[in-house]
Amino acid sequence: MTIPLAIAMGDSAGIGPEITAKAWSARDLHALAPFFAVGDPRAVEKIWDGPVARISDPAEAAEVFADALPIISTGDAGEVVPGTPDVDSARCALQSLEMATGLTKSGAANALVTGPVSKAQLYRIGFTYPGQTEFVAERCGVASDNTVMMLAGPTLRVVPITVHVPLADVAQLISTELIVAKARVTARGLHRNFGIERPRLAFAGLNPHAGESGAIGREEIEILAPALEQLRAEGIDAIGPFAADTMFHARARAGYDAALCLYHDQALIPIKTLHFDDGVNTTLGLPIVRTSPDHGTAFGIAGRDEAHPGAMIAAIRMAAAQAERRAEAAAGVA
Amino acid sequence: MTIPLAIAMGDSAGIGPEITAKAWSARDLHALAPFFAVGDPRAVEKIWDGPVARISDPAEAAEVFADALPIISTGDAGEVVPGTPDVDSARCALQSLEMATGLTKSGAANALVTGPVSKAQLYRIGFTYPGQTEFVAERCGVASDNTVMMLAGPTLRVVPITVHVPLADVAQLISTELIVAKARVTARGLHRNFGIERPRLAFAGLNPHAGESGAIGREEIEILAPALEQLRAEGIDAIGPFAADTMFHARARAGYDAALCLYHDQALIPIKTLHFDDGVNTTLGLPIVRTSPDHGTAFGIAGRDEAHPGAMIAAIRMAAAQAERRAEAAAGVA
Repeated sequence: MTIPLAIAMGDSAGIGPEITAKAWSARDLHALAPFFAVGDPRAVEKIWDGPVARISDPAEAAEVFADALPIISTGDAGEVVPGTPDVDSARCALQSLEMATGLTKSGAANALVTGPVSKAQLYRIGFTYPGQTEFVAERCGVASDNTVMMLAGPTLRVVPITVHVPLADVAQLISTELIVAKARVTARGLHRNFGIERPRLAFAGLNPHAGESGAIGREEIEILAPALEQLRAEGIDAIGPFAADTMFHARARAGYDAALCLYHDQALIPIKTLHFDDGVNTTLGLPIVRTSPDHGTAFGIAGRDEAHPGAMIAAIRMAAAQAERRAEAAAGVA
Repeated sequence: MTIPLAIAMGDSAGIGPEITAKAWSARDLHALAPFFAVGDPRAVEKIWDGPVARISDPAEAAEVFADALPIISTGDAGEVVPGTPDVDSARCALQSLEMATGLTKSGAANALVTGPVSKAQLYRIGFTYPGQTEFVAERCGVASDNTVMMLAGPTLRVVPITVHVPLADVAQLISTELIVAKARVTARGLHRNFGIERPRLAFAGLNPHAGESGAIGREEIEILAPALEQLRAEGIDAIGPFAADTMFHARARAGYDAALCLYHDQALIPIKTLHFDDGVNTTLGLPIVRTSPDHGTAFGIAGRDEAHPGAMIAAIRMAAAQAERRAEAAAGVA
């Protein structure tokens, strides 16, 4: 029996429902594995006139998938107004995330794909996590520090070691221990979920020109160098620290499997500059496979049929590939 | 009479002499304006067997340029060993920078192009400036704060508002006044040197997602918003602050003439990711035109005939174009 993927559609007022529906429409073109959506079916019906099949069990998804977009409803979440988020659309986002995570954890779905949410709206209803990644980690019983957010596109994978924190706090938050912990999870995840036998990890320095031997900051010497030494002692292929600005052109990218960066924009600027339309956010270190399209709710264009499903399609494809890689490993296939 | 450009070849042990010679070899292919090099002629002769013409006055450059690379010698700087920088090669770099700057200030050259130097070596001989830009600014009698370092490639121009400072200091160093001052110089420079009538300036936020309305840092609200308000009141087309990671993909880049970034890597990561081989560093706010190839000394490949002159050629072309634009403006041509 084919186990489907679960897609939490995110904020019902954003473009999540639209890109989910459009991804389903492109299922044959992109050879997408069967999936089902979790959220408010009315959010899809309001902006799309394709076929929807309301299901109550993931096991029904595979059989209806060829003919309709399978949706498990999170129940009535108030009126849906595309482009106008409110506490109801945020509640719908949270419920769909909770349900889709639970179904994946239980094995009823073989991977979790999460659509875009508005953190500002989520904070209004009492959401206390920095982002969906941390929420999913907790629901999986894994400490946030033991998970890694990786952004992946066709020519680059990046890991931000600190994520949704003010830039002024970054230098205080990084430590040799944190860098080692994140790198271990990254190396293991690239092996387990991506099938890379001995992943090559390249590390960005914190300061301009990686500190120029201490002339412009000492974090490279005091924090990064010991971390790389430790990782190499553990047999992990760790190189750097490099000047961050010279790590991301095509020739440099050929030299590593993932770039470990110290803060959000150091990682996100290059990946979104290169792969704005097909970047995928994936969480390593979880007992489940989890991916997400690497863009926001785009409330400004929601409901106008202008959203491109490219990143959602990439997220679905990457989730399916990771799930397959894990299933093969579990079955003892090389 | 054609006034030539002056090229300070930079560290004599780096690739500066080689890319200068290779640029001269490609003078017809790229329709380069006449230039002369300043530095140690032996550094060129050691790694290149093309024709060199030792000149003592810039006025001789234009007549010999068709047949030989004109060089004004900075004198004997010890033995030249490509790939092995020392205090002698650093002294040569500093002397060539000093002489080329002086000749451009005096009007004997119409623009200054500076080759790559090793700051680590320069610091050993008592150089106290953060970089060549600050040195040139002082020699031109302009306070550093009134100049702007801009990196420009075919599809993107960026300005780092702070430059060679530790990342941990950035949040303390930025202020509404500094941002306004840098933006004014940028707007004026884009008009004066690039002929853009009303430049559109896009501002990056400091924090992830530009702070998410204060949830992840308040610099966008407290420092950037007042700066943008002030600039708009002065008639400058200032937009943002934007999440830095979504500013640099192709569609976003079409919306502005320059991106103003708050720190080195925020600006340098996107420009070098996109334009590693043809990025040009140019200084706005000076009485002279100054450009520089946007790469380092590359000691590792110096003397092996492996250096690509693309960035040097781009720097020469941009310097010539800016000088021409200024000459036209001075002559009253629109």
